Amino acid sequence: MFDDADLTDDKFLCGKLTLLQPAKGYRAATDPVLLAAACPARAGERVLDIGCGAGAASLCLAVRVPAVRLWGLEVQAGYADLARRNAARNGIELQVHDGDLAQMPAALRMDFDHVIMNPPYYPPTGTRSPVPERARAMQVDLPLSDWVQAGARRLAPGGWLTLICGADGLPAVLAGAGKLGSISVLPLAPRVDRAAPRIIVQARKGGRGPFRLLAPLVLHAGPAHDGDRENYTPEASAVLRDGGELLARFR
Amino acid sequence: MFDDADLTDDKFLCGKLTLLQPAKGYRAATDPVLLAAACPARAGERVLDIGCGAGAASLCLAVRVPAVRLWGLEVQAGYADLARRNAARNGIELQVHDGDLAQMPAALRMDFDHVIMNPPYYPPTGTRSPVPERARAMQVDLPLSDWVQAGARRLAPGGWLTLICGADGLPAVLAGAGKLGSISVLPLAPRVDRAAPRIIVQARKGGRGPFRLLAPLVLHAGPAHDGDRENYTPEASAVLRDGGELLARFR
Repeated sequence: MFDDADLTDDKFLCGKLTLLQPAKGYRAATDPVLLAAACPARAGERVLDIGCGAGAASLCLAVRVPAVRLWGLEVQAGYADLARRNAARNGIELQVHDGDLAQMPAALRMDFDHVIMNPPYYPPTGTRSPVPERARAMQVDLPLSDWVQAGARRLAPGGWLTLICGADGLPAVLAGAGKLGSISVLPLAPRVDRAAPRIIVQARKGGRGPFRLLAPLVLHAGPAHDGDRENYTPEASAVLRDGGELLARFR
Repeated sequence: MFDDADLTDDKFLCGKLTLLQPAKGYRAATDPVLLAAACPARAGERVLDIGCGAGAASLCLAVRVPAVRLWGLEVQAGYADLARRNAARNGIELQVHDGDLAQMPAALRMDFDHVIMNPPYYPPTGTRSPVPERARAMQVDLPLSDWVQAGARRLAPGGWLTLICGADGLPAVLAGAGKLGSISVLPLAPRVDRAAPRIIVQARKGGRGPFRLLAPLVLHAGPAHDGDRENYTPEASAVLRDGGELLARFR
């Protein structure tokens, strides 16, 4: 568990959401907000957030789709605990389960309408525990294709997987896609005419539509970094500040 | 063979190249020109054009890199014949071999510095020949992953594969990539903020660089089709009219 003295309390979506996060280690920034904006969940549908961390993506989704039903899976107990606290303090129901996607907890072995995921892409911080169970629990270096496969298994037929990852992860995502089809890739470009270091992938279990490469979502206006101003493009700002959706991009 | 009465004589690269093409059937348009612009071949290097058709991509490449050494493979005898004629009438050396990429002719079993390909993406036109050899020769429905594998086999270590295909073909390209690495994808968008129906893929045999998703090349200016005017963007025009290169895009 994290010590409260090591936590920060951060505003998301212009303060519609506040999240406790560790001052050090993985901290949610724009990725979970963009992920939530791209998930086509509707009221009443079941969403599983694999690797939910402190709950940012799920809780952002609940702000936009209040009656969505949320489950989370998190391998690091400290983050799972934070996700529960963050859900409670924002008045959102999120059932967080401790566990590893390679050994899905029995309580999560059901069909979901949606799976969302923001897999880790930096090597895990911290030292390896001498306790084997703990060491395994800290292990976050499963290949991305395993994440995709685990997500696909948890989907009902016709259910949607939405994930955000590095563009360099696309080959692994496709390698793990299996029965997922109708795959669309939304490149996230920091500025116009720049390569996209991050992508959002949306795929449907049993989908038969073609693979699609969508026009990039450009996050920042202007040709270069503009000091301390965020200078989001209007479309990025509508998502990152106002909690809007990215669904039209995928239609 | 095509009857001369069924051929048209078309200008490419503002008349730097003229190509005989069948009035009906596959006709080169912008794809082979863009493909040639993205191939990083230098003077003296060996380039194999798999499925060379009437020779458009190879001959465009020779206009930009005059001392490049060109080989072509073409399964349809009529197109192979046209490629030979087109090379001769433009004063370019292009050794065209009849054959199928699934059974590479012995003369092409060498190491190339570059392989380029513009695989067919429409079903073959025309009726199936009752002569088995002819029927096989007309067969162009090999999966795209087979094209990529065949291209990779013909590359020297460190050699480059450059191909143009539908964006929906990217999963198959990656499935066939095998020992190809340092894969970069250049989306070709008809207009700004449109999905890319076509992509150029560049990959290096034994390359260890990450998969990259580049900023799209936007082909047409303006928000919609502008009557009969081509209204290319300046960058597209530099390639399609002036024979410029796209190499900086991949650096």
